[in-house]
Amino acid sequence: MPASVFSPLGLVALLSDFGLVDPYVGIMHGVLAKAAPSVRVIDLGHGVPPQDLRTAAFFLAHSREHFPAGTVFVAVVDPGVGSQRRVLAACDAGQLLLAPDNGLLAPSLGPGAQLRAVDVQRLVGTPRSRSFHGRDVFCPLAARLASGALRFEDLGSTLEDPLRVEFARARRTPTRVQGEVLFADGFGNLITNVLPADLGPDPRRWRARIGARDLDWVDCYADAPDGRPSILVNSYGCLEVAVAGGSARETLGVGVGAVIEFER
Amino acid sequence: MPASVFSPLGLVALLSDFGLVDPYVGIMHGVLAKAAPSVRVIDLGHGVPPQDLRTAAFFLAHSREHFPAGTVFVAVVDPGVGSQRRVLAACDAGQLLLAPDNGLLAPSLGPGAQLRAVDVQRLVGTPRSRSFHGRDVFCPLAARLASGALRFEDLGSTLEDPLRVEFARARRTPTRVQGEVLFADGFGNLITNVLPADLGPDPRRWRARIGARDLDWVDCYADAPDGRPSILVNSYGCLEVAVAGGSARETLGVGVGAVIEFER
Amino acid sequence: MPASVFSPLGLVALLSDFGLVDPYVGIMHGVLAKAAPSVRVIDLGHGVPPQDLRTAAFFLAHSREHFPAGTVFVAVVDPGVGSQRRVLAACDAGQLLLAPDNGLLAPSLGPGAQLRAVDVQRLVGTPRSRSFHGRDVFCPLAARLASGALRFEDLGSTLEDPLRVEFARARRTPTRVQGEVLFADGFGNLITNVLPADLGPDPRRWRARIGARDLDWVDCYADAPDGRPSILVNSYGCLEVAVAGGSARETLGVGVGAVIEFER
Repeated sequence: MPASVFSPLGLVALLSDFGLVDPYVGIMHGVLAKAAPSVRVIDLGHGVPPQDLRTAAFFLAHSREHFPAGTVFVAVVDPGVGSQRRVLAACDAGQLLLAPDNGLLAPSLGPGAQLRAVDVQRLVGTPRSRSFHGRDVFCPLAARLASGALRFEDLGSTLEDPLRVEFARARRTPTRVQGEVLFADGFGNLITNVLPADLGPDPRRWRARIGARDLDWVDCYADAPDGRPSILVNSYGCLEVAVAGGSARETLGVGVGAVIEFER
Repeated sequence: MPASVFSPLGLVALLSDFGLVDPYVGIMHGVLAKAAPSVRVIDLGHGVPPQDLRTAAFFLAHSREHFPAGTVFVAVVDPGVGSQRRVLAACDAGQLLLAPDNGLLAPSLGPGAQLRAVDVQRLVGTPRSRSFHGRDVFCPLAARLASGALRFEDLGSTLEDPLRVEFARARRTPTRVQGEVLFADGFGNLITNVLPADLGPDPRRWRARIGARDLDWVDCYADAPDGRPSILVNSYGCLEVAVAGGSARETLGVGVGAVIEFER
Repeated sequence: MPASVFSPLGLVALLSDFGLVDPYVGIMHGVLAKAAPSVRVIDLGHGVPPQDLRTAAFFLAHSREHFPAGTVFVAVVDPGVGSQRRVLAACDAGQLLLAPDNGLLAPSLGPGAQLRAVDVQRLVGTPRSRSFHGRDVFCPLAARLASGALRFEDLGSTLEDPLRVEFARARRTPTRVQGEVLFADGFGNLITNVLPADLGPDPRRWRARIGARDLDWVDCYADAPDGRPSILVNSYGCLEVAVAGGSARETLGVGVGAVIEFER
């Protein structure tokens, strides 16, 4: 289907750095229930580290395909909330995405994505707060989009210049690939920005190292002896450093930004 | 609409200090699904610090208005569970609220709220446990109220003397307003009990200090240079200390109960 | 009803050790929404400590009864993901349960439970990843089971030899019962593997100790003076060490595996 065709399914998926300790996420659910009682809401996740656009962008880019066409995504990692930053809407592969114009969306969008700058003033008026637009702007808009009361085409003018943030990619030479740890997941697995494609048709020909440690190539966690650091292609399709039965982050003592190297 | 009119929407909102590590919240969802399959459940939040009635009361009072009329709120922060403490039901502005009679509800209720002491023995019998009335008392009642199987008026006798807990308010003199930090949110922002109204028509005329640090007045987080402590009116409508791009709690080294002062 | 009769209610309950920081749980919700839009999903919980089969088994065994017949449980604590470990399905008391064949299910099942080894290859093909079968195997199956598109009987061949893990039970002599702390809950309460039945008709005749501390028998948290360690029968039906108004784990400085003793 063309990228710009969107048929609402009555489903909103929320991604944010709000965490679940405060009632911020619950309040967004309340706003959606009030504005669109029949719309269903899924928490894609609210554990993005505060203001961490790169991790948010990664989470969104690697989650979208698992949701149905007709989903409206609301991604709120928004250090510029209340300032003049724009609100972005994208229509891509039958899904809509709403986010601040801060680079969060870019890695998620295909080449055919259509973008609009949301006319917030016209559609929701002056937001009640200048610190919680998830509540005051994004969810009110998502409720209307998800229920079919508002169309993508009516959100605002088309946009050609969304803010783009360059997220570091692996650097390649014929004999060396150098990447970095993007984040550690809840198991302490270290997710890197190196893709199998960066290593060519036979990734296992490369010797992998992180810190001063060699990594064993495995197909799944259980293939490695407990406690031994290994490397595998994970469910995101990235290369990941893991320690079976433990935490790679703790065992290796490395975290976000650590360099991973492949040599042959 | 009169405070006492309640028309159930089939929606329950849960607030507790149970956290999300244990299955306590999931079990409450199970109880609700079993007793009232068509009722929808929203987690307003379960991150209230253990037994912290003040924070729970704040969260509830500042969330209610974002939920539709017809919502049944269940607020379980309940150090007295299993003792003789009463179970309270309130009907206010078209919403119902259930909570232990421990002061949690008071700040949420308008002057026209009607209160009843729930006749637990008659309605749900002897609770199965004396330590988890969210499962054994509150959710079974909420399921029936939210689905229309039980009316507020049939919960028990009217009540005039709910337990009230005095939460500290800001102290004011003509030249000085002194408040305190109620809690830090997940971003490390310090939410205080000082309201803009405490500072009169021109809040910015007051010099704000916390610890030994002066605070800059800003309209939104992005207005402050990264790392600089600032003060703003937040989405709860309270004065909040923030550090753009960081955590005020960590940067300033202050937390719950810290004194904030305004002078002019 | 016979253990093997299952009538789908369109309800899936998820239990895992995925945590809520990553989008793993949100992605599973997406997969379910995509495969079975009308199925409702409850998060029983995702806070099982990583790879902790014992705690997962406990959570599931003590939660099932609070969910309606017709529920499909998906329990994914799966250190063997991607290896040759089997996928297990159980039908018991009108509910279905899916889990890796690693002992997780055993404590939850009644004597009449029917078991099948899921023919993953036939039903879902080669899983896309070897590290996230919650997404690639369990939820796709659950969607079809919960919506009635797939029957338990069609999952695969019957199974007589599920992997069983022996979880430590309390040791009893006529004058001494010795158990251990299974886990601490979010309040710092210490949940033990000692049951009231282990202590006979009059549990309070036994003197209870943990570490070097005597414990007072109480009926509910509020019966103990603040700060004093006590023992009570909790909502799981187990003996639990608590400190009213505080955390037993922190006050007593003991945790998982600590020995609790009863003497008379």
